[in-house]
Amino acid sequence: MSQEKKPVVAFLGPQGSYTHQATLDAFSHSNYSISPQVTIEDVFAAVQNGDAFRGVVPFENSSNGSVVFTLDLFADLHGKYSDILVCGESYVAVKHCLLGYAHSTEQNLTNRAAAPSHPDNASAKSMARPLSDLSNVKRLYSHPQAWGQCKAFLNTYVKHAERHDVSSTSKAAELVAQDKTGESAALSSIIAADMFGLDVLAKTINDRVENTTRFLVIRRKDSSTPPGSIPPSPSISNTTAVAPNGGKQGNWKTLITFTVDHANPGALAHCLSAFEKFGLNLTSINTRPSGVENWNYVFFVELKGRKEDGEEDGKVNGALKELEKVCRGYRWLGSWENRLIAT
Amino acid sequence: MSQEKKPVVAFLGPQGSYTHQATLDAFSHSNYSISPQVTIEDVFAAVQNGDAFRGVVPFENSSNGSVVFTLDLFADLHGKYSDILVCGESYVAVKHCLLGYAHSTEQNLTNRAAAPSHPDNASAKSMARPLSDLSNVKRLYSHPQAWGQCKAFLNTYVKHAERHDVSSTSKAAELVAQDKTGESAALSSIIAADMFGLDVLAKTINDRVENTTRFLVIRRKDSSTPPGSIPPSPSISNTTAVAPNGGKQGNWKTLITFTVDHANPGALAHCLSAFEKFGLNLTSINTRPSGVENWNYVFFVELKGRKEDGEEDGKVNGALKELEKVCRGYRWLGSWENRLIAT
Repeated sequence: MSQEKKPVVAFLGPQGSYTHQATLDAFSHSNYSISPQVTIEDVFAAVQNGDAFRGVVPFENSSNGSVVFTLDLFADLHGKYSDILVCGESYVAVKHCLLGYAHSTEQNLTNRAAAPSHPDNASAKSMARPLSDLSNVKRLYSHPQAWGQCKAFLNTYVKHAERHDVSSTSKAAELVAQDKTGESAALSSIIAADMFGLDVLAKTINDRVENTTRFLVIRRKDSSTPPGSIPPSPSISNTTAVAPNGGKQGNWKTLITFTVDHANPGALAHCLSAFEKFGLNLTSINTRPSGVENWNYVFFVELKGRKEDGEEDGKVNGALKELEKVCRGYRWLGSWENRLIAT
Repeated sequence: MSQEKKPVVAFLGPQGSYTHQATLDAFSHSNYSISPQVTIEDVFAAVQNGDAFRGVVPFENSSNGSVVFTLDLFADLHGKYSDILVCGESYVAVKHCLLGYAHSTEQNLTNRAAAPSHPDNASAKSMARPLSDLSNVKRLYSHPQAWGQCKAFLNTYVKHAERHDVSSTSKAAELVAQDKTGESAALSSIIAADMFGLDVLAKTINDRVENTTRFLVIRRKDSSTPPGSIPPSPSISNTTAVAPNGGKQGNWKTLITFTVDHANPGALAHCLSAFEKFGLNLTSINTRPSGVENWNYVFFVELKGRKEDGEEDGKVNGALKELEKVCRGYRWLGSWENRLIAT
């Protein structure tokens, strides 16, 4: 296969981000041209307009919850991404580190260096301890999602540092590398430490060490599958989960959005009972503002099951027919193979 | 009433924030000691430990959705705030402005000054136009929630400015006031422009002009009501909504959290049908990670209705009994008078 003919996979960049890792796990460099994008919306746009064959976007973190930017793009209030479907998922273990220029190079720290800035908060919640003196750190940089994933460590050791939001954990490390005073530090991946020549000031500072992000693979409705080159859905990395039945009789997930008539009492319950009627297990529900009217919502339902192409008798197909009768509008956003096994 | 005996109302500060405005609407300075707190958790802690009689926290924005920090405190995974109940709500119209030092003082702008930095994005989505040349603005400061509320304006006029997250819109204005180069700007309230001597570079830059934030008033379970000094629930400001029936036979809202056994298919549907059985109108559903196990959630349900004290026959009481049979655990987080009328 020549360089020019490789299908493009767009992902939320930059290089070295967790989404990059998820992308490489699912799509090999030898078969695909991996293309970093600046925003999650850029990934959607690249897939929608056909510039990219697939896209990879973060969807949900096990500690911090949904990625609302991604939910809003799926809600698609302005009808810009009407051809986007989910076709796969990927799980990546997220291990944040605190990166910067070490104030002291001693590995054996004095008590002062490792002392919590707020001893009351230290109460066994943060398992990580600094590898360096952090008293010099005045500014922290990271992606907004990361703050919520490292609350205990941040509150215990660097509570008074000012937090600056940047577009990715990788970008955070890049910025910190430019500040030679050592007053800046980044919440980022250990890969980024190598990439930008930074010291690891603390390792695995997540509140939950099993912190995992789920990524979704998106495609256009009408996109074809190049013969023999694409796995049915991406593989998994760095988690205890493994693909169950190799895609043969594996279980499936489906994502659906719908809106209800808020003037109609019980409208939401009626919509949800459409799924119950067909014995479909709802695994999660999310809401986002509908954009139409204040305090109206777009509901996101994820369930176990698969919409069958061209069949009328599948459970999901049946539930969607039922849903259509009681909701204001709905959209099937794809069915894909489940890649998580409960441990 | 002497100064010392005034009940304390804790709110998410600083002075000049939208929460401050919500607090003043609900609690008058003459009857209460209004006390700004640094974080939402500080407000919960002040009420839980009895330092404050009431607390006021942001809960939901009409454009940007739920305030996840507040949801997580209600989810209360570590059992720190087990006595907190919601006892009221308040709506405040949010009108963000872009504040800074004007590069040009001309009110009649040249075409260049008002030109979108990304003309493709200008497509009638952002109704606000800059009052000043923004080409000089390199850094933006605001509270994380504000970015999502002003997407169209930001993408159109200041896409390439770097965004810095700070703890409040008021704090953002304070920081910007210190940068005399005019390269910094804040998404903040018009009140903050006066407070910090900044120019208004653009007015009402929200995507949705009817952008409104809902605040909740919290109390301790066992807190008493000082005779004659507290309204049944706070009043409303700056919205088209008005208090319906003066609290006599007005409608009520109730907030409930519950967890389900994820190994049991249909568990979520069973829990939700407990509410349907009693004809309760669910007005919103939210989920947050349960903190117990990855991909398990705490569900938040808000419904129209009221848990009756000491009664067994109320609809909400009935639904809670039913819920108890099918959920893993639940918590009633309070019932309060609805302060919103659909317009």
